[in-house]
Amino acid sequence: MTRHIRTEPLTAETFAAFGDVLDASGAPDRTINEGRCQRYHDKARLDFSDGRAGVSIFKSETVSLPLTLTLVERHPDGSQAFLPMSSDPFLVVAAGDRDGTPKTPRAFLTRAGQGVNFHRGVWHGVLTPLGGPGLFAVVDRIGDGANLDEHRFATGFIITSD
Amino acid sequence: MTRHIRTEPLTAETFAAFGDVLDASGAPDRTINEGRCQRYHDKARLDFSDGRAGVSIFKSETVSLPLTLTLVERHPDGSQAFLPMSSDPFLVVAAGDRDGTPKTPRAFLTRAGQGVNFHRGVWHGVLTPLGGPGLFAVVDRIGDGANLDEHRFATGFIITSD
Repeated sequence: MTRHIRTEPLTAETFAAFGDVLDASGAPDRTINEGRCQRYHDKARLDFSDGRAGVSIFKSETVSLPLTLTLVERHPDGSQAFLPMSSDPFLVVAAGDRDGTPKTPRAFLTRAGQGVNFHRGVWHGVLTPLGGPGLFAVVDRIGDGANLDEHRFATGFIITSD
Repeated sequence: MTRHIRTEPLTAETFAAFGDVLDASGAPDRTINEGRCQRYHDKARLDFSDGRAGVSIFKSETVSLPLTLTLVERHPDGSQAFLPMSSDPFLVVAAGDRDGTPKTPRAFLTRAGQGVNFHRGVWHGVLTPLGGPGLFAVVDRIGDGANLDEHRFATGFIITSD
């Protein structure tokens, strides 16, 4: 049996069950720098069991659609934000949980200027840039322990663009 | 009297007195995602007197060189990281302190894939994108109080590319 997932656009509403969309949509919270800059304030729910927030840089190989998804992971001890350092889109895979096992994943396609913050413990795919340098700033928990659960699907999902 | 500052390339060494360069230079600290991704771990010295780290999105007008610098600011209660969400360069201005007043600023030109983290209390220019969408993720202190000192130079500095 092959299973298919179609990508959907990433919006705050479609992604709400899994985390935060980090972008400059809607009205800014403040205008700063003598009117030259708009601040969209405190957009990510950072949430760590212990340890502290840190900023790391990830450089990943790029992929293209369709792709076969076999693995998702979650971080029980902390949220994780992926902030692209280019205007290229990336694929965001997330899944709900049923008794410690991921449900059927959903796949979201970003547009330029969008990052995401996975809430603590949410099943998600690994970083999946669809083009460009594959460079991201990642805000996640710095602390002890593995902070990682992995789930491998017996049958992969084929993710296609819509 | 007109005063000139020439931009210099942004490197970890040239910027060390002011903060951290956030990029994928040098050897990665870890390879993750079955060998497909390199992690440059915990690159920013986040430092807050109180409050907590947060992620905000800034959308700024772009500027071009030469420009006249008249204002610098500092945040006494916390570090501030500027992470570009495009591959476009931006200008990073920073200055040492002498008795509460900024010394002559220095101006650094980023290349694609570089962000910065200003250490707590360091005098710096406001966000200055030199092209592109002017979109940045900012990791700074979320907390009470203004957390802002500003200094206006009686005579502006003209910043030119080298």
